[in-house]
Amino acid sequence: MPLLAWDVEHFLRLHRLHPFWCFIWNSRRDSSITPVYATKAAIIEAITELEALFPKGEVSTDSDVLRAHGFSDNSYHPSAPHSVVVLAHSTEDVVKIVKIANKYRIPITAFSGGTSLEGHFGGTPGVGGICIDLSTMDSIISINEADSDMVVQSGAKWEDINHTLEDQGIPLFFPLDPGPGATIGGMIGTGCSGTNAVRYGTAKAEWFLNVTVVLPNGEVIKTRRRARKSSTGFDTTKLFIGAEGTLGIVTEATLRLAPRLPTSVATVAFPDVRQAVDAVTEILNKGVPIQCVELLDDQMMGAINKSGLSDRKYAEMDSLFFKFQGSLEAQKEASATIKKIVEKYGGKHFQAARDEKEASDLWQNRKYALWSTMALYPGARAWTTDVAVPVSRLPELVLETKKDLAASDIKSTIVGHVGDGNFHAIMIVRNAEELEAVREAVHRLVHRALALDGTCTGEHGVGVGKKEYLVEELGPGTVELMRTIKRAIDPHNLFNPGKLYPDADSKPGSHH
Amino acid sequence: MPLLAWDVEHFLRLHRLHPFWCFIWNSRRDSSITPVYATKAAIIEAITELEALFPKGEVSTDSDVLRAHGFSDNSYHPSAPHSVVVLAHSTEDVVKIVKIANKYRIPITAFSGGTSLEGHFGGTPGVGGICIDLSTMDSIISINEADSDMVVQSGAKWEDINHTLEDQGIPLFFPLDPGPGATIGGMIGTGCSGTNAVRYGTAKAEWFLNVTVVLPNGEVIKTRRRARKSSTGFDTTKLFIGAEGTLGIVTEATLRLAPRLPTSVATVAFPDVRQAVDAVTEILNKGVPIQCVELLDDQMMGAINKSGLSDRKYAEMDSLFFKFQGSLEAQKEASATIKKIVEKYGGKHFQAARDEKEASDLWQNRKYALWSTMALYPGARAWTTDVAVPVSRLPELVLETKKDLAASDIKSTIVGHVGDGNFHAIMIVRNAEELEAVREAVHRLVHRALALDGTCTGEHGVGVGKKEYLVEELGPGTVELMRTIKRAIDPHNLFNPGKLYPDADSKPGSHH
Repeated sequence: MPLLAWDVEHFLRLHRLHPFWCFIWNSRRDSSITPVYATKAAIIEAITELEALFPKGEVSTDSDVLRAHGFSDNSYHPSAPHSVVVLAHSTEDVVKIVKIANKYRIPITAFSGGTSLEGHFGGTPGVGGICIDLSTMDSIISINEADSDMVVQSGAKWEDINHTLEDQGIPLFFPLDPGPGATIGGMIGTGCSGTNAVRYGTAKAEWFLNVTVVLPNGEVIKTRRRARKSSTGFDTTKLFIGAEGTLGIVTEATLRLAPRLPTSVATVAFPDVRQAVDAVTEILNKGVPIQCVELLDDQMMGAINKSGLSDRKYAEMDSLFFKFQGSLEAQKEASATIKKIVEKYGGKHFQAARDEKEASDLWQNRKYALWSTMALYPGARAWTTDVAVPVSRLPELVLETKKDLAASDIKSTIVGHVGDGNFHAIMIVRNAEELEAVREAVHRLVHRALALDGTCTGEHGVGVGKKEYLVEELGPGTVELMRTIKRAIDPHNLFNPGKLYPDADSKPGSHH
Repeated sequence: MPLLAWDVEHFLRLHRLHPFWCFIWNSRRDSSITPVYATKAAIIEAITELEALFPKGEVSTDSDVLRAHGFSDNSYHPSAPHSVVVLAHSTEDVVKIVKIANKYRIPITAFSGGTSLEGHFGGTPGVGGICIDLSTMDSIISINEADSDMVVQSGAKWEDINHTLEDQGIPLFFPLDPGPGATIGGMIGTGCSGTNAVRYGTAKAEWFLNVTVVLPNGEVIKTRRRARKSSTGFDTTKLFIGAEGTLGIVTEATLRLAPRLPTSVATVAFPDVRQAVDAVTEILNKGVPIQCVELLDDQMMGAINKSGLSDRKYAEMDSLFFKFQGSLEAQKEASATIKKIVEKYGGKHFQAARDEKEASDLWQNRKYALWSTMALYPGARAWTTDVAVPVSRLPELVLETKKDLAASDIKSTIVGHVGDGNFHAIMIVRNAEELEAVREAVHRLVHRALALDGTCTGEHGVGVGKKEYLVEELGPGTVELMRTIKRAIDPHNLFNPGKLYPDADSKPGSHH
């Protein structure tokens, strides 16, 4: 038996109690409204039951495994280890695990890519819980080219899906592009997006035609059929998008695909961010076929230059990277229109890729954002956060945030999906003092975004890190509606507790 | 006092009962699980209270008004009159009415455009209920061109919104285009789409950035802020899209707008529908910038010819109408690509509009669909229904349906949003026999669509007309999830009862 559990085992032996007794005893002791979870003894019993149900090696209480599934190097939020990690291979496996979680009242958290930034997949403090690892449920079940859709298991990674489509010569792709390594299940849970959202929308659009979900009561539902559209009531698919595993565990999904089009790339530098945003607004409202438009601030351009990752030297100014799409003719037209508009707003050093290789190299430099920032501070870690505002308010947000970060002496770069009013600050953390300064700066950044009619997170999700802001952002009524739904679907609060919904005592505007 | 209520008033006078007593009495009598609504006497008292709260003329029990708000000439489903219609002018008005509905436990149904086809806005049989008329809540609250969004009241019509934008010289439009006269509130309730959905998606995509909703408990929430994207949990906006007024009454919405692009039109005729669909699939998967692609069957083309509404004579074959978009250069390229592809699949008589006037004329002929069908049968009515399937299954669905309709001697035409696998059958009804034949044909059509992994409605919604199919289509678990949410949000089943959710005793595959 691993470290974590020895004292429980000891306790059980000592008292010869059936875990259910402990459960009742525990329940009597605790008269608050918080749910009553299994005692440690009951969890031990549940683990024994899981070990009997699953093949050897699929149920782990190894402390390294528990750590890897409960903590993230990219998150600075409090977390706790799970009690056990179970590797699921099918929807039926997930059902089995959920039934045991129900029997013993044990929190249950799904894990797949593990790339989230806001502490989405940690265990429940003081309890632990069951972590279901879905990462090996990564099969492609079917590809329907004529219907431009495909069915996959939820552990499949979006990059692998796109590689498979390309390898099979299918001229379609899945356009949601969050961080590398993200899986379909996590992308659904977070309500993700990425650089392509300005053209294709987010996970909350219509890229998930249906999902197969295991509900907290262990029931399996499929939310919709494969028809591209349906008007049969409110779409329960959407309920699970952004729910962060708190309402159900997605095991399969039908993805809508888009035609893979030829693209090209251009970059341009601006005297300041306001002119850059004004140019983007005009380009978007003119309907130029933009697939992506990314803002990299002067610090970020400096980091790319200094990192040596790129052969090219850029002007260290607030810059835009455009990816536009269509036939060669359409690309030429888009490039000319973009050039004309950006120059009207003071854009300098406009460069359009002359061929595919150049386009790919230019875009690669956008992708170096995080690595370039990190390369400047060897051994440091980074805290990455995101907010979004209506596009017209983005300049104000960026300018004030840059001032604030400079005043707080925080080393940082900014990169944004400017077409969506969404930006990421990458802030360097080298010690406890810097960590505290960054934590406070994130808090101020969120409040700045909210004051501009924005959101505390454009695409990273709430997890543990942003839940204190939900009431202020959405209003108590909307948050209560979310809780009402949560309570109705998961009355024992078994599915990923502690995430998304604000703690009962959190008040608008309060901090920590 | 109008007709409807006199007996209740009489009863009240006779018994000198406070309506609450009747309510309790009623509640004792009825021990079933169905919700207990106010007695007629209580409703009369509620009406008196409404009359005291609202200006003269805004509360009506006039039988013509009740009829107009409870029945539709386009729906063949059972309906019942409301007890009273109240004209609301603001969110606060809606709150007042909902509070009275709560006090007396009276069903409450929102009404605005009244264009729905599936009996969405009828009263509750045996009870009546309050109808809130939101049609004069049609203001545009703000237009934010730089953010390409606007805020409107829910009674605003999509056509008026687009005319206003055009009149103000704003190069943006709202791309959801259901039937003429539809309002934003109804469009949200039904989860609508239209001809533009193949390019822009449906109401379930991201066209509604947020909604202001009055919940069944009378609370007002705004689901989101105005940021274009947000990852703050599952999006409660989506809960109200397609909920048909059963979870909340939408009073305001923030709409996302799209650039208004130049478009052109082309038509082509096919030997049969399978080749037409294969051509569309290739065109869509190649990423040709299509805004609409509509299928009109041979019967429909014949109707257009015979109606005399069009100057042009068309080949009476299964035909496609394309609308494609972009600069002149992009249009030329799209037209050439389409021509090449459709000819590969046996397309004949390809005609591309040579100028805007010709494009507008051609598209107008598509719009004549319903009128042309009706013109062939003076004095007849039409039953219009819709289903959707994965696009690859559309030919099978259309061919079998045409065979079935012919065998049943039903006069009909078919028009479809072929890019979405969604089609409408317009069936002529001249007498009770034909009505019964059509009713049975619709039933067979729905089962045919479900057997092809499709949906009983692509865009018209469920209402009363399609609710018997929900369990078969979505599975009992998904329907139960919808009911769980309904019960949690509207425990007394006050909001638009009898719509959307299948009756408790309906079983998969049962009919009527």
